[in-house]
Amino acid sequence: MEKDRYQNGLDKLMEYTLTDNKDISTHLKISDDLQDIAPDVGKYIIEFAYGEIYSRAGLTNKQRALVTISSLVTQGTEPQLELHINTGLTAGLTKEEVVESITHLIPYTGFPRVLNALSIAKKVFSMRDEEVSELKAH
Amino acid sequence: MEKDRYQNGLDKLMEYTLTDNKDISTHLKISDDLQDIAPDVGKYIIEFAYGEIYSRAGLTNKQRALVTISSLVTQGTEPQLELHINTGLTAGLTKEEVVESITHLIPYTGFPRVLNALSIAKKVFSMRDEEVSELKAH
Amino acid sequence: MEKDRYQNGLDKLMEYTLTDNKDISTHLKISDDLQDIAPDVGKYIIEFAYGEIYSRAGLTNKQRALVTISSLVTQGTEPQLELHINTGLTAGLTKEEVVESITHLIPYTGFPRVLNALSIAKKVFSMRDEEVSELKAH
Amino acid sequence: MEKDRYQNGLDKLMEYTLTDNKDISTHLKISDDLQDIAPDVGKYIIEFAYGEIYSRAGLTNKQRALVTISSLVTQGTEPQLELHINTGLTAGLTKEEVVESITHLIPYTGFPRVLNALSIAKKVFSMRDEEVSELKAH
Amino acid sequence: MEKDRYQNGLDKLMEYTLTDNKDISTHLKISDDLQDIAPDVGKYIIEFAYGEIYSRAGLTNKQRALVTISSLVTQGTEPQLELHINTGLTAGLTKEEVVESITHLIPYTGFPRVLNALSIAKKVFSMRDEEVSELKAH
Amino acid sequence: MEKDRYQNGLDKLMEYTLTDNKDISTHLKISDDLQDIAPDVGKYIIEFAYGEIYSRAGLTNKQRALVTISSLVTQGTEPQLELHINTGLTAGLTKEEVVESITHLIPYTGFPRVLNALSIAKKVFSMRDEEVSELKAH
Repeated sequence: MEKDRYQNGLDKLMEYTLTDNKDISTHLKISDDLQDIAPDVGKYIIEFAYGEIYSRAGLTNKQRALVTISSLVTQGTEPQLELHINTGLTAGLTKEEVVESITHLIPYTGFPRVLNALSIAKKVFSMRDEEVSELKAH
Repeated sequence: MEKDRYQNGLDKLMEYTLTDNKDISTHLKISDDLQDIAPDVGKYIIEFAYGEIYSRAGLTNKQRALVTISSLVTQGTEPQLELHINTGLTAGLTKEEVVESITHLIPYTGFPRVLNALSIAKKVFSMRDEEVSELKAH
Repeated sequence: MEKDRYQNGLDKLMEYTLTDNKDISTHLKISDDLQDIAPDVGKYIIEFAYGEIYSRAGLTNKQRALVTISSLVTQGTEPQLELHINTGLTAGLTKEEVVESITHLIPYTGFPRVLNALSIAKKVFSMRDEEVSELKAH
Repeated sequence: MEKDRYQNGLDKLMEYTLTDNKDISTHLKISDDLQDIAPDVGKYIIEFAYGEIYSRAGLTNKQRALVTISSLVTQGTEPQLELHINTGLTAGLTKEEVVESITHLIPYTGFPRVLNALSIAKKVFSMRDEEVSELKAH
Repeated sequence: MEKDRYQNGLDKLMEYTLTDNKDISTHLKISDDLQDIAPDVGKYIIEFAYGEIYSRAGLTNKQRALVTISSLVTQGTEPQLELHINTGLTAGLTKEEVVESITHLIPYTGFPRVLNALSIAKKVFSMRDEEVSELKAH
Repeated sequence: MEKDRYQNGLDKLMEYTLTDNKDISTHLKISDDLQDIAPDVGKYIIEFAYGEIYSRAGLTNKQRALVTISSLVTQGTEPQLELHINTGLTAGLTKEEVVESITHLIPYTGFPRVLNALSIAKKVFSMRDEEVSELKAH
């Protein structure tokens, strides 16, 4: 039933997020922002991308995050790269694995894409560190 | 010393190849083909790509193969994709992991790149099966 | 129910095909070719691409064909461009509209992508003319 | 005569603009901004892109706008996408057709390009609504 | 007058061709092949690309060939790359400059595009050598 | 020895910079910014890109700058384009040659990439003029 695919996708998306950081709200914020002009696109992300593709067997969440990040570095689609470095870390990738994956792409995409991706990774790392500091301060 | 970087790269490249299939000869064939017009490019592949980048710590050979394949699917550079699906399998990826990684890219690259990549994967799988059959027949 | 999405997609795909040409079999042939290594990808094309996206209101089939062709010319993914020029003609685009759309892209993609796309269009037109001739000869 | 091609292009460009919004000035602003370093580029846009390509028969202005937008979403060239969503609306596309065209590209470009394009569409829609409100307020 | 732009473009195109090789006929063959379905595209190549852009002052023919080849290597549009390596050699680039320009792109595009481009360069060099041999044999 | 490759790259990089402008510091700033998360990437830029590729014979520094700029315009990687227009000017390209090279790409990449690149060129020219003014004022 359709509802199950949506719920399925939402559950899967939750695995890539932490209750104590802003990933899930960022993902849902994208849907919210488009709610007025393109409400179905957010639904397709949950139902198709997370409910069908991410819910498949055969790769770990960490492997799916590696594949996603590698494609986004290659495309140079930066807002999505920021989001998926974040969800990748939540899915269990270490910062070192993220940096190594991007660095590994130098022979395949050249330096420009890699440098832009590393700047985004640095920004994501620093934002997550701040969140952790804030949480600890409470 | 320069010689060490080259030897280092060659050793690393060997990890991605089997003595009983044609990977290593394909890689070296690329260098051979370009030997007359661009001899240094084969050298850079060995020294820089394999001797420096692939020789870094922080990712397993399987993870490096996943990252490489994901980038090549996204770029649509098909001769290299064929080569790297082959080396990925040699590095330890299962056929299922190769197919899953390509399938996972549907939401990020769309269907056309994915379909073209799956056709190449199918071709590589079938060539490797034939080689195994031939070996067994001997 | 899941079955309905699949049937829905198949019905929509049929609108883009003629019983007397090879479009539908080409689309299904893609699924068939991948049946052994990636059976779900053919299912996603029917269920998601045709059953959800193509089944949306808001654009005519001809408009959807124009949008698809324009994206494929821009990407340079040629096997898919051949298929979608074919389905576009079946959906009601005239040959002139196909050629004009490709020509219109000169200022946006430059000449190389446009020239490659026109070569494919020429090939598709000539294959369809032959099919019509064969049908008339019977 | 050369002057006619320029005038022809300017007339065609006017069809894609309204006297009561900022499209025409945006187009001309691009030429103005480049007037000092590359004066001929603005001339080529008017003479070649509008005077020759857009002035061809065979597609309606709305169809040309659809083709243009589809290519720019696929390329991810965002400043131009903003401009051409604007001119597309002026040429007669509805907001729904713009959103549907972008949404239709999910299976061909993946979600990242589509999400970035929808954000731009949302921004353009809201800017045009404000202009209309301002006009009504007078 | 329009005729002058066309003649101007044809004259410029001639500078990139030799009477004793097949460049000019290849360029004109493209136009001939598209004569039936898109006759104006060949005209735009002559009038706009050669008659206006290539006819500008400020760069030598060799520099224009370098810029063109670098863009085509980056795009991976291979049929055009073959043509423009040919015209680049006719315009005065040496084989070494062609190979060096492609090799120089490794840090900017990665190895895959560079390797595919070098294969094409090798093919073009060998075809031109054969033509020279044939001419000498007469 | 490794140290020599690094020194070699640094010397070559110096040729593309002036003591009285900010190029060298921009290049080194990139390495500095990534020092904490990816220290080796800056090293690869110096050792491999400048120490090996840029240090090759066969092209002048001006030609290498032309090739680099043409690739970056085609890719649309804007932060790097800004940097390399700057180093290209230092390497001896005139502003006119930079503008002409970008303009020459209209038939190969279309107008969008060219317009975005010209905006960046304009910004770089104006920043360099200001630096010269500031220097003269002292």
